[in-house]
This record gives sequence, structure tokens and C-alpha cells, in this order.
Amino acid sequence: MAQPQNTKTAITPRRDEDFPEWYQQVVRAAELAEPSDVRGCMVIRPWGYGIWENMQRALDRMFKETGHKNAYFPLFIPLSYLEKEAEHVEGFAKECAVVTHHRLEVGGDGKMRVAPSAQLAEPLVVRPTSETIIGATYAKWVQSYRDLPILINQWANVVRWEMRPRVFLRTTEFLWQEGHTVHETEAEAREETKRMLDVYETFVRDYLAVPVFSGEKSESERFPGAVQTLCIEAMVQDRKAIQAGTSHFLGQNFSRASGIQFQTRDGRQEFGWTTSWGASTRLVGTLIMAHADDDGAILPPRIAPTHVVIIPITPKEDTREAVLAAAENLASELRQLTYHGAPLEVELDRRDLGGGVKTWEWIKKGVPLRVELGPRDLESGNVAVSRRDGGVKEKQFLAASEFVSRTVGLLDEIQQNIYARAQQFRDENTRVITTKEEFYDFFTPKSAHKPEIHGGFALAHWNGSRAAEDQIKTDLKVTVRCIPFNDQPESGTCIFTGEPSRQRVVWAKSY
Amino acid sequence: MAQPQNTKTAITPRRDEDFPEWYQQVVRAAELAEPSDVRGCMVIRPWGYGIWENMQRALDRMFKETGHKNAYFPLFIPLSYLEKEAEHVEGFAKECAVVTHHRLEVGGDGKMRVAPSAQLAEPLVVRPTSETIIGATYAKWVQSYRDLPILINQWANVVRWEMRPRVFLRTTEFLWQEGHTVHETEAEAREETKRMLDVYETFVRDYLAVPVFSGEKSESERFPGAVQTLCIEAMVQDRKAIQAGTSHFLGQNFSRASGIQFQTRDGRQEFGWTTSWGASTRLVGTLIMAHADDDGAILPPRIAPTHVVIIPITPKEDTREAVLAAAENLASELRQLTYHGAPLEVELDRRDLGGGVKTWEWIKKGVPLRVELGPRDLESGNVAVSRRDGGVKEKQFLAASEFVSRTVGLLDEIQQNIYARAQQFRDENTRVITTKEEFYDFFTPKSAHKPEIHGGFALAHWNGSRAAEDQIKTDLKVTVRCIPFNDQPESGTCIFTGEPSRQRVVWAKSY
Repeated sequence: MAQPQNTKTAITPRRDEDFPEWYQQVVRAAELAEPSDVRGCMVIRPWGYGIWENMQRALDRMFKETGHKNAYFPLFIPLSYLEKEAEHVEGFAKECAVVTHHRLEVGGDGKMRVAPSAQLAEPLVVRPTSETIIGATYAKWVQSYRDLPILINQWANVVRWEMRPRVFLRTTEFLWQEGHTVHETEAEAREETKRMLDVYETFVRDYLAVPVFSGEKSESERFPGAVQTLCIEAMVQDRKAIQAGTSHFLGQNFSRASGIQFQTRDGRQEFGWTTSWGASTRLVGTLIMAHADDDGAILPPRIAPTHVVIIPITPKEDTREAVLAAAENLASELRQLTYHGAPLEVELDRRDLGGGVKTWEWIKKGVPLRVELGPRDLESGNVAVSRRDGGVKEKQFLAASEFVSRTVGLLDEIQQNIYARAQQFRDENTRVITTKEEFYDFFTPKSAHKPEIHGGFALAHWNGSRAAEDQIKTDLKVTVRCIPFNDQPESGTCIFTGEPSRQRVVWAKSY
Repeated sequence: MAQPQNTKTAITPRRDEDFPEWYQQVVRAAELAEPSDVRGCMVIRPWGYGIWENMQRALDRMFKETGHKNAYFPLFIPLSYLEKEAEHVEGFAKECAVVTHHRLEVGGDGKMRVAPSAQLAEPLVVRPTSETIIGATYAKWVQSYRDLPILINQWANVVRWEMRPRVFLRTTEFLWQEGHTVHETEAEAREETKRMLDVYETFVRDYLAVPVFSGEKSESERFPGAVQTLCIEAMVQDRKAIQAGTSHFLGQNFSRASGIQFQTRDGRQEFGWTTSWGASTRLVGTLIMAHADDDGAILPPRIAPTHVVIIPITPKEDTREAVLAAAENLASELRQLTYHGAPLEVELDRRDLGGGVKTWEWIKKGVPLRVELGPRDLESGNVAVSRRDGGVKEKQFLAASEFVSRTVGLLDEIQQNIYARAQQFRDENTRVITTKEEFYDFFTPKSAHKPEIHGGFALAHWNGSRAAEDQIKTDLKVTVRCIPFNDQPESGTCIFTGEPSRQRVVWAKSY
């Protein structure tokens, strides 16, 4: 992804100049989202929401194929519910938006105010996650082993008050899905936890074209109240990690808290074994940070709201109609095509703007294929095709009919190419590290330039010491991203404590 | 929909005994939804949510076909935004849930409490509707006539504090979609307002099998801040009206309030012309109240989550495997079928429960077609088919292959039959009324039995007098449901004031 430093780019600053600011500018230039006047809350614009809709569609299908159904639970959680699981409420207390009143009224100054007489007896927390409110319902539904498993997912908004919001990655309100299941046995619940992590891994790999490490979180990074948290961790272009999906084995913690009890096959009363798993609009940010370049977003075709944009070039009035007719023709031929089971999405940009302006807009938005069609092309029967994963000036001239027959293949090539690039980048920036000194060096910036892109993923032996983990976090802001699943781990020596270690774990700075 | 009063029914009480309670019992028996411990908020169970997902899918496609895209705006609205449109805030002030704090903490008594130090400088209202928060964003997007129209829809949850909640029909939190558009001219905005009402009317007629009156609201029933509110009004089986969708022409009221201004084609600055339109989970309640009977829900096939349920009858162990194999076979043949552009949804109920128990569950849930398949059917090759729109004991014996070839046709028949019944019911209970005495009589219960089903829709001349309208509401709890669209209205005399009237309007009691 190197880029000559003297080339003018559509996004300022470039990634190597200021990655965090570059990200904000790509999100803005691609019209994905924008901050709202409500602190920490974003407006998801149609292009960004179109990506989210595609994510929803694909994930929803995968959830249903694995036996889950959707349902919907209340936005508000009574404070007393949240308190039932001690670690859980402690984990979320600092970021809870709280509803305390249910009416407005006109105050003495003639202005609208919160009505003091309409204070709630018990404050309601806007859900930061729904384990406790869903648990209260499951407690009513579950009586016998015959009622199990319960396999439910919810698409919803949640609120976690953010002091340092960052669009898509960390917002006060975000959209997500949360699966909540109850099982008869520990083994089944653990199997479900892993199954859903695999769904996330498959989805992120096959749709978002992002390779991930998957594994288990260390105790300090676990979901509040969980027995075990599994996760997938992606590397983005500043070499930091983003947690792209999590799946929690909750043991019987929340069942005890909510009273989810059932009669077993042999007539005993037992608490249910529960799981929860979620992925959110953070995935949109991950997608951008993983693939976008200094000219804007690059969307993998399988998640792009539009696969092909046709830009008619109509410099002269007398050929305008003919060009538009040819463009319409091409569009309707393309719309007959099927791409991965759904109709190809084609946009014909008829807006009364210059071709260059339109082209740059679509480059910044990251549409996989752009097709230009002008007066000269009417005679030759050719169109000029550009791939968003290629150089912005690169064009390939193809007969229109040939382009139609090759479109689906080109999209698959682009999808594979984007994935291959991301994987190469990650591999180049993942290092097996064997000494503490090398570890500290790896994660220390080398120049005065800030913010410098440095480090990456370090694979290093660790014996599980919480003290060592805390020290590394304090010194370097580096954490254990995951303890990879590994059937045959290679044992060794912890590079921090010198104690025996069962396996290497993944360390990185993270979002 | 008469029913012999001595027949035992699956739902108690029957409609004629206590309609409101019957409704609650159907919602419960069909496993559509249930109250939560959060006052006024419901849990939408998988079967109810499946209906909502089908509604979403159909409406979403219709919105996209009419040029709209989806986006997402914040859940929270700063109090000062809501205040910008005076009628608007007044209309919603009494039902606003308000977030005043953003953190919890452990209090002196060791219990969790709202952190007094985390009080927000400006309270945030949980959106009751999004005109004001979306308007603030549109004000940034709109500069020139070239930016128009803006055609956006949002799928979201909203909160309106309810003192007398009723599941689906009136809940504190509900799910809905809200369209918000901006146009260059008044004419275009009025056209959009009508177009989207037509979308609702088409959807409710073709999918929910519910006939409606469509028209304009009187001033007193208008959306707070709107210039004109259009609506569709359905009659349900207690002969009351339910507003099933509304579309508002907002004029320039919200544009002025939010500062949505643009440069016109001739260089002037003008405020945009806006519309908004919405339909909600209230439609699920409408569907039940319109079609369900004393044995439970009756779902029109085009909105049912499952079209056909196969119930294997396996009384003896030695034929069990063969019966299940035949049932699997039938299910997979049926799943090859397409019903209105999507795969037929077939459920094979393999649960280890008696056939009767299972059959009654599916009757109560309202699945359009039930198929029983037992050991004797293996020899004959027949299956026993029951239509949910027929009597619960009625069965038709068909060769399995014949059933497969007739399934789609049967579903279409059921859809049409359900619509025809609803239309007949509405027509029978809609009366042209020409005197005030007749009007009062029509809306007055005739027996001591409470709640008595009485009245219906009255088509009566009204000259627009607010005083008469208020009097009728006070006396009878009857309101103008809509002023029907009518190209050639038949003028007459207002039955309340004796003044000239331009046309008859629809009066009814309503939800």
C-alpha cells in the first residue's frame, strides 16, 4: 500500500501523515457518517447505512442458518436488574445513560423543562447490552429441559456513554446485534459460543475481506460477568488491533442472577447455561481502516451498496441523449446479472455535474467498478472500466458486451485482491518476539513524527501473569488481544516473567 | 364471523364477551408478545417479530422502489431542539422519557445509584419522533436546489410514555419506520405525502388483507406541527377504527424551525418543503384485531412467518421413523416452491408432544395451512390439510403430490378470503347517517353487557365545526377518523350544525 509521497491525494492528510485524522476524513468524504450535535452520537448517512444493511442481511442469514430467531426486548433496564450481576453492573456503571423523568413541562420562565413531579420511582438505564433484561424474560420462558435451547438474536441500538468518541469505532449510541441463548448443558453452551465466533470469523473474512486472529480474551479483557470471552481481532493499517466480534460463555452467572432455572431430564432443578455474542456498526469503521487508501474508501464487492457505477460523459448537447441511452442500456443489461445470489447493484449517475467531479465522488465512496461512457465510445462500442482496487488513473477499455460478461468475475477478483492485500499487510506486521527488549522496541515509535505508525501484532510467550499484563499496558498501552485457539500449542518461556508458558499470545495496541 | 355461543373455543373470553381481554389473550396464546417488567414496554417474541420482519421487508422494498434510502439518526434529542417547533413540543411534552445523567455510582448505602455529579448540562429526550433531530442534519446537507429532493427513511425504536399501555397498539417503546423528505416545491412535497400514503394503503390491503378508508385528518387530530396529516383507517372486529399509517405534509414549519434553507433555481433563498410518514408495530395489533377469531390468530399468508406447518402423527414407535421420513420428504418438496417471489416457509414440527397439543398451538399462532401426516397416510399417500381460515375441525384429504401442486393456489385463496371477510365486515358496519339522533343512537350501547360491541363507521356530513367535533368527542368518545379523498364529493348539510357541508366524513370510536 505504499504511495509516492509527492502524489496529490483525494484525502488529506494521508495515512502516513496522521492516521486518526485520515480516518475521520475518509468517513466524511465517503459520506458514511457524521457527528451529530448530540455528543458521541453519529448520523449514519445512506451510504454508510447501506453497508450496514448488507452486513445485517448476511449475518442475519447466517444466524438463521444456525437455528436462531429474532426477537425484541425493551430499550430500558430497571436499575435493580442491572445490579443483579455484580461484575456486570460494575463494568457498565460508568457509561450508563439514565432516564429519570417521563414528562416535560413549561417552567416559570416560560421555557420547557423536565417536570420535577414526573420523576420515576426507579431510574431506567438505557441498555448498554441486554443480558439482564433478556434474562428476566427467559426466566419466565424456561421451566423444563424441553424448553431448551433458547436461540434468539436481537437487532438493536445500545448506549454506552463515551468520553472520547470516534465515529463508528466508539460512539455513545451504536447499532448492533446481540445473540442470547440458554442451554441445557455446559458443553452445549460452550459449543454455541464457539459456533457463533466462527460465524463472525467467516463473515468478516468472506464479506469484509479482513483476516482475523481468533481466540480467547485474557481475564482482564473479559466481558463483565462472563466466564470466557472469545473474540476475533483484525489488524488495520496503522497496525493496531480492532476487536470485530465477541462471543461470551456466561456459565450460570446470569442464570443465577435472573433465575433462569429448569427441570433436568432426571428431575433436578438446575440453572441454565447461557451465552451472548455481538457485532456492531464498529465493523463499518473496521472495514474503512482495513482497506481504504489515500483517495478514500475501498469497499469489498460483497458488502458494497453499489457494485458498478456508470458515469456518462456528456460534454456536448448533441450527443447527450445518445450517450445517456447507451448508458441506460448498459445499466439494464448489468441489472440482469446476479452476484452471490442477489441482483447486481448498478448506479447510473445522471446528475448534471462534470465527469471528473462525479468520478472522484465514487472513488472516495469506494465503489468497486466504475464505467465511463462518452460520445467516442458510442462509435467504438467500448467502455472505460476502472477498478477501485487499482490505481485511480488506471482504465481498461472493453467492449460493452465483454464488460457485461466479465463483471461478476471482476468483482470476485477485486474481493480476493482486497483480502490478499489485507492478509499480506497483516503478515508483514506480525512478528514472533522472543525477548522483552525486542517487545518494548517493537512497540516504541522510532521518529519524532506523531502519530507514527509503528509496531503491529507481536506473538510472544506469556504465562498468564496479570502483573506482567498490567505493566505492559501501563508502559506501552499494549494488551493481550487474544490467546489464539491452538490444538498443538508450542510451549516455551514467558518473555516477561521467565516462567513456563503454554503458548504464544497476540499482543497489540488496539482501538 | 358469527360463532355458536356454546362451542368451546381456544381463547377465553370470546370476542363477543370481552373484546379487549380477548385481544390480550390472543397475543399471549399466539406467542406474539408479552408485557415486560418495564412499564409500558413489551417483549416482542419470535413469532410476533417474524411478522414484523415480513412487514419491514415488504415496506422497505416499496420505499426503495419509490426512490428512498435508509439512514440512521440519534436516539437522543437535545431538549432545545424539540422546543424549536412550538406545536410539536407541546404535542409530545407529556410523554417524553428524559435522560438526565450519564453515570451510575455506588452510594453511601453500598447500593448503585444515579451519580449526582454526572448530570447533563442539557437534558436529552429519547426520541418520540425525529423531525427535529433529522431537521438539524438536513439543514447542513441542503444548500441548493441541486441537493433536493432528500428522500430518506429510518427504521428505529421510539418512546412515548404511555399511561394506559396496550400491547402493540399503544406501548411506551415501539418499533417503526419514519420517512423524512425535503422538496424544492410545495407541490412536490404534497405529492410525496400522498404517494407514501398510497404505499401504506397498498401494503395494508395486499399484505395485511385489511381494507382501509384513506383521507385527511381534521385539524384536531393532526400531527403536532403538520400542515396536513393524511391517514389510513382500518376497522377491527369491535367495529372501532385503528389508524394504521400516517403521512404528513409539514409545509415549511420544520424547515423554519431547523433552518433547512436552499438557493432556488433563480437565486433566492427559500425554506425547504418537508414531509414525514410512519407506520409501526401497531400494525401487528391491527392485524390481530382485524382477523383473529375465538381460536387465536389468523395470519394472511403474505405476512405469515410460516406458510405451512407439517405435523407428523407418530402414535407408535414402529412407524415413527417412516412417518418422519415422509414428513421430511414433503417438507423438502414444499420448500422448493416460491410464494410471491420468496421461498415457501415450511415448518416441520418434530417436537416430542402429542399431535393435538401441537395442532392447537399452530391454530392459535394462525399458520395458514396445517398438514397432518400419520401412519395410515403412508399407505394411502394422502395428507390431511386444514386451512386456518376454515373451521378448526375441517380437513381436506389430498394426495401429497396434489397438495404440493396446489399449495401456492391455496395460500392465494386464503389471502383473498381473509380480505373479503374483512371487507364484508367493514361494509356491514359502515353506515351512512343523516341525522344527529341516528348518529347518537348508532354509537350508544344497547345492552347492559359491557364491553358491548356496537357502532361502527358512520359516514355523516360535517361542516368542519371544531365545536361540534369536540362535543361529539365528549359525549360519545367518537372522532372524525378521516375526511376521505373524494374527487366528486356529494355536498349536503352538517348533521350537527345544520350548516352546508362539502362532503361526508368517517366517524368512529378508535384506538
